[in-house]
Amino acid sequence: MVDVQGRSDERNIAIQKVGVRNLRYPVTVLDKVNQEQHTVATVSLYANLPHHYKGTHMSRFIEVFNRHYTDIRMPTFLTMLEQIRVALDAETAFGEVHFPYFVQKKAPVSGQPGMMSYHCWFSAEKGADGSRFIVGLEVPVATVCPCSKEISSRGAHNQRGTVRVQVQLGPFFWLEDLIEIVEASASSGLYTLLKREDERFVTEYAYDHPVFVEDLVRASCLAIESRYPFPWFSVEAENMESIHNHDAYAFVERGEQQWQVGNHGD
Amino acid sequence: MVDVQGRSDERNIAIQKVGVRNLRYPVTVLDKVNQEQHTVATVSLYANLPHHYKGTHMSRFIEVFNRHYTDIRMPTFLTMLEQIRVALDAETAFGEVHFPYFVQKKAPVSGQPGMMSYHCWFSAEKGADGSRFIVGLEVPVATVCPCSKEISSRGAHNQRGTVRVQVQLGPFFWLEDLIEIVEASASSGLYTLLKREDERFVTEYAYDHPVFVEDLVRASCLAIESRYPFPWFSVEAENMESIHNHDAYAFVERGEQQWQVGNHGD
Amino acid sequence: MVDVQGRSDERNIAIQKVGVRNLRYPVTVLDKVNQEQHTVATVSLYANLPHHYKGTHMSRFIEVFNRHYTDIRMPTFLTMLEQIRVALDAETAFGEVHFPYFVQKKAPVSGQPGMMSYHCWFSAEKGADGSRFIVGLEVPVATVCPCSKEISSRGAHNQRGTVRVQVQLGPFFWLEDLIEIVEASASSGLYTLLKREDERFVTEYAYDHPVFVEDLVRASCLAIESRYPFPWFSVEAENMESIHNHDAYAFVERGEQQWQVGNHGD
Amino acid sequence: MVDVQGRSDERNIAIQKVGVRNLRYPVTVLDKVNQEQHTVATVSLYANLPHHYKGTHMSRFIEVFNRHYTDIRMPTFLTMLEQIRVALDAETAFGEVHFPYFVQKKAPVSGQPGMMSYHCWFSAEKGADGSRFIVGLEVPVATVCPCSKEISSRGAHNQRGTVRVQVQLGPFFWLEDLIEIVEASASSGLYTLLKREDERFVTEYAYDHPVFVEDLVRASCLAIESRYPFPWFSVEAENMESIHNHDAYAFVERGEQQWQVGNHGD
Repeated sequence: MVDVQGRSDERNIAIQKVGVRNLRYPVTVLDKVNQEQHTVATVSLYANLPHHYKGTHMSRFIEVFNRHYTDIRMPTFLTMLEQIRVALDAETAFGEVHFPYFVQKKAPVSGQPGMMSYHCWFSAEKGADGSRFIVGLEVPVATVCPCSKEISSRGAHNQRGTVRVQVQLGPFFWLEDLIEIVEASASSGLYTLLKREDERFVTEYAYDHPVFVEDLVRASCLAIESRYPFPWFSVEAENMESIHNHDAYAFVERGEQQWQVGNHGD
Repeated sequence: MVDVQGRSDERNIAIQKVGVRNLRYPVTVLDKVNQEQHTVATVSLYANLPHHYKGTHMSRFIEVFNRHYTDIRMPTFLTMLEQIRVALDAETAFGEVHFPYFVQKKAPVSGQPGMMSYHCWFSAEKGADGSRFIVGLEVPVATVCPCSKEISSRGAHNQRGTVRVQVQLGPFFWLEDLIEIVEASASSGLYTLLKREDERFVTEYAYDHPVFVEDLVRASCLAIESRYPFPWFSVEAENMESIHNHDAYAFVERGEQQWQVGNHGD
Repeated sequence: MVDVQGRSDERNIAIQKVGVRNLRYPVTVLDKVNQEQHTVATVSLYANLPHHYKGTHMSRFIEVFNRHYTDIRMPTFLTMLEQIRVALDAETAFGEVHFPYFVQKKAPVSGQPGMMSYHCWFSAEKGADGSRFIVGLEVPVATVCPCSKEISSRGAHNQRGTVRVQVQLGPFFWLEDLIEIVEASASSGLYTLLKREDERFVTEYAYDHPVFVEDLVRASCLAIESRYPFPWFSVEAENMESIHNHDAYAFVERGEQQWQVGNHGD
Repeated sequence: MVDVQGRSDERNIAIQKVGVRNLRYPVTVLDKVNQEQHTVATVSLYANLPHHYKGTHMSRFIEVFNRHYTDIRMPTFLTMLEQIRVALDAETAFGEVHFPYFVQKKAPVSGQPGMMSYHCWFSAEKGADGSRFIVGLEVPVATVCPCSKEISSRGAHNQRGTVRVQVQLGPFFWLEDLIEIVEASASSGLYTLLKREDERFVTEYAYDHPVFVEDLVRASCLAIESRYPFPWFSVEAENMESIHNHDAYAFVERGEQQWQVGNHGD
């Protein structure tokens, strides 16, 4: 059968990324407590396409990923991208995998357990001589407004917020440790199961630790910086304001993304 | 050209609804203050299909709607459905139109204006002898938790919530009046623009009016019932809990949906 | 500590449903081939609230669910709802659990494997004397337009569509069997991995089996009816039309939902 | 009342962006045919925050935007950002406004009219000495697969796709002209209303003009480049593959984003 994609193209336009998007797959990821965790992922895989080729071969992305989905860790993800790079005869392969990561968390007073879900992702790029690997994480938190607390004689508006952290590898770290850093920077972390004594504790603790979105990104930023030598990272905070129908937002980034030479994935 | 859809079908299965979905259109709706309001809608239009026809004629839904989009009011919406019913030679035509409805709202102390957006919809059904017309509305609100307030020595968790009201016509009413009823049943309504004196007012007012989702649907329900003789209505409340990563929810409905005989749409 | 929720309420309004929504949890479900499957769920749990109680106790929903998430099957789901009903001292408990269900599927000619994801859900209600249990399933398919094929001298517009089936239990069945029925009613099922020989096969097979959304719901309906004595079921088809920016839709339902007396969940 | 936000901060962390997000507002935009068009927008507004301030003043973003929403054009949008910059005493102000843009489009044979909706956005940054202004646009199209057509004896899989174009100003252009360029690069543009003779035309025309996502971005790229001297632009294409449950994707960008010195907004 003819290979239409393999034909030559005369338009002289190289394509930076071409591939498959929004593939849904069951995956197994690394878990700090239980060694491995079963979850489900949304996956996108791309490669660059030199100007002289008409098209890429989309099925090869799936063939490679289908060999790796039962073991998605940071190093094996780069190995998978390297295999895509070779299979597609490309200079660079790109991959994104998004998944909920579950952590058992105990209520602060009663100690009752419940599962918390954190949206995580790997976003990486692999060339012949190196790579760039970003890990992302969203941590839901509670925030009490310092201004509302200070100017009001009673109460203070508070709300659920989300903190999005992205870091470039870099040093080894556990998702759980980044989660802890962010929760400690907020008015309070969230819980799936709270009994009455827990609810009192969380209410009072949060009221005693009011933060603006600005405070949240600054505190997270300082804590990350003091603990990990990431070449680059960013922190975003978004509050679903309880007094407005829009959100409050802050973004800070530090360092610069780097192309990391060497076989980082091995 | 052959009319494939018009052919007969031998499978003896009548289809309750067939048509077009997720059409995006600019529309003009009725506005209490400014007579008319320009907004944009997502529209779905259906008719039933008797068992002996192979298919419906999808383009006719659009032809009819295209004559009406500059004047979407409750009575004209039924007129439009009647034209679809006739154009499709159907027993019943169905339509849904969803749109954001904007209302200017002043901050409670400073009086500064801002636009609030409320998600609204019409969902109606028109037969030869009558109709059923539902109006829906989502009102974002603030809710302070009565339990958290009472058991804690300071503060109280609060959050943004959404109240969804659906009513069957019935009596004439303004969307603005339903919005007011819901906001008065919550700890506080929301505002787009609040200066510091407004923020203090809203914080203290909300703290003084704590409500569970249960209270919110009950208070809305009583207020609606005491004011309008709707044959059926429902109220749902959903809180984006500031201490959990899931939502609290309550639902109440009263009366029963009725088929209303007569030319309601004229 | 005071039990604010347990207080009496004088407003005389019973609440049909109150509870928690949009909880994200890892779950284990039944798998036809591998006995069990790890996936992730979005869960909502409710109970009714008699008019004389002020509020429900939200943490109890989570406590019960937290004992059951590693074994979500149709009978155990009803057992879980019964425990919620008792824990909340309610007449009726309600639950919904949505999850992607993964099935390995081989390409039609090359036999190459890939994972397909199908959105599934259980939606059930449990009272002291019986229950109602609905299973839902979304199957993505390809549809070739019969009209476009017949009136055009070459080609035919086709697109991805989704068929949503809901059935009331009833007889035992496997999700895989409902998936097969729907795929056989479409122009073609979808595949995650297709090599060139597979793509030719699927293209020609689909072109030889054109269906309107009307045909798709009728054929699925007949096949379900001839195989399973469900008291009620519905089939919806939605095409992301390749020539329009809106969707085509058809809906058919058969039978009537029933309250099923007896201890269905045991 | 105290100004909590105005206090000094000792953590020495400058914040790149802080502000409000997901504000919904009615807006009026420029329309090639009708001079102005009423639509609705989702708006985000930010400013940078120097390291020595504790917080920004969120209400000022709304105050400024509330003076401008009835006239959203490229130059007035920069004027608005300049006012935010001054009101917040910031070095740089950022704004994003997303809105559906409606264009009447006639069926290719019957000439019947219908409204098409295109998702558009402005994303800009304004400093004391210059600015950067990006306009984005999503155009839904039909794509017939060249490989499927060539290897199959009949038919060819085709689907709805979306092309996302982003351009940096630059030269004046109409959204309508970019839409035309993209539609001419696809197998066919989409239509809201097609009668049978139109459906035949579109089916055959699309079958005669098969394109991969790679062809779609390359053809759009060449056409844009030959007509407009944009300093930077990108083109992405995403096909909702009719034979897969995932999407095909291609991305190309040309030039480099520049900081444009001078009062571009006036």
